[in-house]
Amino acid sequence: MSGPPFQIADWQSAVTEKRRHRDERIPRSHRLPEHLAERAAKGLLKPAEKEVLECGILTALDIEITSISDAAVLLERIVVSKRYSAVAVVEAYCKRASIAQQIVNCVTEILYDTALERAKYLDDYLERNGTPIGVLHGLPVSLKDLYAVKGVHATAGLVSWIPTVSAEDSSITKGILAAGGIIYVKTNVSQGHLMVESINNVFGTTSNPYNPALSAGGSSGGEAAILAARGAIIGSATDGGGSIRLPAAFCGLWGLKCSKGRMPTMGIESPGDGNESTNAGLGPMARSVSGCELWLQAQLANEPWNFDFTCIPMPWNAEDARRPTERLTIGVVRDDGVVRPTPPVSRAVEEVVTLLKAAGHTVVSLPAGEIQDLHRRGTSCVMKSNVQGGGVGIMRHINASGEPVVPRTATGSDASLLTALEIFANHRERAALARRYNALWTRHGLLDAILAPAVAHPAPPHGKYISNAYAGIYNMLDYVTGSVPVTMVDLEKDVAAPEWYEAEPYPRIEGVRFPYDWGDKEMKEVYESPKVFQGSPVGVQIVCRRFREEKCIGILKEVEALLRS
Amino acid sequence: MSGPPFQIADWQSAVTEKRRHRDERIPRSHRLPEHLAERAAKGLLKPAEKEVLECGILTALDIEITSISDAAVLLERIVVSKRYSAVAVVEAYCKRASIAQQIVNCVTEILYDTALERAKYLDDYLERNGTPIGVLHGLPVSLKDLYAVKGVHATAGLVSWIPTVSAEDSSITKGILAAGGIIYVKTNVSQGHLMVESINNVFGTTSNPYNPALSAGGSSGGEAAILAARGAIIGSATDGGGSIRLPAAFCGLWGLKCSKGRMPTMGIESPGDGNESTNAGLGPMARSVSGCELWLQAQLANEPWNFDFTCIPMPWNAEDARRPTERLTIGVVRDDGVVRPTPPVSRAVEEVVTLLKAAGHTVVSLPAGEIQDLHRRGTSCVMKSNVQGGGVGIMRHINASGEPVVPRTATGSDASLLTALEIFANHRERAALARRYNALWTRHGLLDAILAPAVAHPAPPHGKYISNAYAGIYNMLDYVTGSVPVTMVDLEKDVAAPEWYEAEPYPRIEGVRFPYDWGDKEMKEVYESPKVFQGSPVGVQIVCRRFREEKCIGILKEVEALLRS
Repeated sequence: MSGPPFQIADWQSAVTEKRRHRDERIPRSHRLPEHLAERAAKGLLKPAEKEVLECGILTALDIEITSISDAAVLLERIVVSKRYSAVAVVEAYCKRASIAQQIVNCVTEILYDTALERAKYLDDYLERNGTPIGVLHGLPVSLKDLYAVKGVHATAGLVSWIPTVSAEDSSITKGILAAGGIIYVKTNVSQGHLMVESINNVFGTTSNPYNPALSAGGSSGGEAAILAARGAIIGSATDGGGSIRLPAAFCGLWGLKCSKGRMPTMGIESPGDGNESTNAGLGPMARSVSGCELWLQAQLANEPWNFDFTCIPMPWNAEDARRPTERLTIGVVRDDGVVRPTPPVSRAVEEVVTLLKAAGHTVVSLPAGEIQDLHRRGTSCVMKSNVQGGGVGIMRHINASGEPVVPRTATGSDASLLTALEIFANHRERAALARRYNALWTRHGLLDAILAPAVAHPAPPHGKYISNAYAGIYNMLDYVTGSVPVTMVDLEKDVAAPEWYEAEPYPRIEGVRFPYDWGDKEMKEVYESPKVFQGSPVGVQIVCRRFREEKCIGILKEVEALLRS
Repeated sequence: MSGPPFQIADWQSAVTEKRRHRDERIPRSHRLPEHLAERAAKGLLKPAEKEVLECGILTALDIEITSISDAAVLLERIVVSKRYSAVAVVEAYCKRASIAQQIVNCVTEILYDTALERAKYLDDYLERNGTPIGVLHGLPVSLKDLYAVKGVHATAGLVSWIPTVSAEDSSITKGILAAGGIIYVKTNVSQGHLMVESINNVFGTTSNPYNPALSAGGSSGGEAAILAARGAIIGSATDGGGSIRLPAAFCGLWGLKCSKGRMPTMGIESPGDGNESTNAGLGPMARSVSGCELWLQAQLANEPWNFDFTCIPMPWNAEDARRPTERLTIGVVRDDGVVRPTPPVSRAVEEVVTLLKAAGHTVVSLPAGEIQDLHRRGTSCVMKSNVQGGGVGIMRHINASGEPVVPRTATGSDASLLTALEIFANHRERAALARRYNALWTRHGLLDAILAPAVAHPAPPHGKYISNAYAGIYNMLDYVTGSVPVTMVDLEKDVAAPEWYEAEPYPRIEGVRFPYDWGDKEMKEVYESPKVFQGSPVGVQIVCRRFREEKCIGILKEVEALLRS
């Protein structure tokens, strides 16, 4: 079988068939009773509701196991105290994944049979050998649909990819398995991974478990949704322009985006068109910092650089990943000059600032004028890069099936196609901005990290995200980013002051080249009141320089401890 | 003063002035007597001739000091046994640099005054503190002209750059100084760093110290020439398509090209046009492996990642850089299917194979068909990338002064300008080739390194290089390469057999896009007999995978020991 795109004559039938293929793999015992299914269909059910928990699918043990958010704690109970078998853990997570799927539509591939077999093998292994296989022994790990699993489908959210079956495991899949992790589901994405919500014609729209009327974000939205619904404890995602940070922020999760080259990228099934001006970073999302750390440790313990040339030989540095004992110096970006943060996002930033200061750390406000100039130019630069191919590549994949383009998917168009010399000019601009941003790190001594919004707003109603401002620039700079869940939208605290609405909107970023993002003006229109975003988590990002993944994990540990206290 | 290119009304006068500026900095006591200067002008003098050594410029101590090729030995005599002061070492090297300049035209900037001051400071420092400043304490280190030194000119071999004065030290300059190295000269390059010989209109042509009728290679040819003339012991170079490997091979030197990102690149004065499809690697050239190692150690000891965002935080791994004690597995590339190696190059490869086997290492012939397909495609791919901007950027720099284009400079032209979609297609081709090459490393267990020609021929007559086949592909793959000086052209052993001439020439690589390189047919024409290359050293390359700089140094140590034995 040759590769995608496949010519699909009747795309709706292909989709129906594909969804049936997935749905029939949900065991009957995992199916919601009809009255709950009906509420779910109307978007009126949440996965954590008491009625769901008590509808007969989950046992008390299932609920106990899946209520543990700290992956290190669950690991300890599997391999040290042996309170739970891997089989019990996987059974619990398969059930909750099925529930999540039926309520927020987050799953693309169901692999429960092989997962259970593997759990049995791992239990036997532990009993026989007394030691675990690796740092993920017995832990279920979900995969964004683009990570290849041998013999399993990977659609990239494209109808013309439905027939695709991966020839071998991705390097990330290999890393999870080598560490004793258990693959049991793959999860939903945006069409071609080209939007920061998860909507495509193959699987439909993934909703937010905190409020199904809201988006789970994207392109790693299926991962975020299944984690937030407690259908996963550690997930595997990618971020080429906010695709870890937006879903993590919208779904109350921890996450880490590595620099390009830190993680191995062989076996990522995405319709890459050869545009190498952008920096996608791989990384985990999880319900705890420990989940992120274990995922990263697992990958590097597998020494992927021995078999995957895309990856730099840089072993995990456990020392750097410790919770820091010294005082940190953290720079703050409060407003990027592209989109003013909404009140809950500003509140989240200030809450973290307050906690950091109270713990004795130094917080430095980065110079607003320089930041806004850098971020406006940087956002323009990265937007242009994303669609500089004019959509020729992606439209081939979309047109092969006749499916429509999902609104606001960043395909690119004739208007966004750059010439080689325009691409070069944009590279020079990027290099100049990177040099200027570099200088900010050292201006006040050497900063340890930057604290910034991850996105200007909480989880938006479906289709209403404003922009990936705050996120995209750190792809351009290839910085490491950590995602921090801070708070929830508060209907009282988060009412915007009149000045917020009255401030002159920031001008749009060179709109003609990138018509998918909205701007500051639209932000004010969408943020009529906090009610629009009711129930949404609110997150921020901790930004570290290139290849400081361990340092970022260490700082996330500090912030996690401060938030808990 | 704004940056280059500067409008130059009368380029010949600007050149005359610039050369005078350099020449008047050669102290009178360093000037060759007239009869030798006349022979030098005619290309009939070599820097190591007895008459030169005894003409009165050099003392016995100068000759003793500069006869030491092993940088670690010289370092020991400065900082441990204290047999030589830094001042004595620098004085000796300044004299020999002046001699080299007068015979092979390798120097662009002379910085003897500051070098001597610094040497005095270092001697005082060592006496006062008892410990050296760093791993280069007291060692003179030469710089390819493109490495910025604050307040010093950097022309990039372009007349319109003559007025350029660097605003601050390059990160590499900083690394040398922080380790106690002494900057005393900058050296010649090709026009715009765009040819593998060192010819430009500002400074003219750099000749080979082994035979001034031959090229020293390029673009780091000034470095190679000054090292081969014993006017330097450690040099600082760059390699975007063979610019370390060709000069190292032609001048009998060791060298190391790092992967992109291992070394900091801020402060490289080069007319970059924003073409980021190519991979230039930085690195040392030296008269010993120890010289290369000390240079690399110095750079990383300075933790450049703290101030230079272009550089990955990867400290020196001394363990990996040790001479290996285990048996190695080395793959061999004998013929890339682009240009058949000339007899001395094939002989050099076989001599190393024989030494490796005799030492118990395993040598594996890489499959000829796969190698030739990969190298032909890869050479095409990298050639296209190099000139995909169509020469628009570089021609602006050349035209600003009215200087002519140096024949065979890889400027690019209308015919080589690619569209964005053609660039993307070439990136996809590169990714596919990288994946296939990656598979070769693991096909026979995991190879430690690949042994290959560095270039198909020894140092050619000026202007007659054939191609950077063998070199460019390893830029495309971003592999680490080590340069190994193996032997000298032998007028008897290196006569080509009739079959070599009679073999059907390999077809040219897509000539229309890259008209600067010649091919296999021209190789046979130029290699009329070994006499054409008489006196030339012959080198090979040791290729390691990405970011294995230390491993490559370790293997170079093994090969150096085997060659000595």
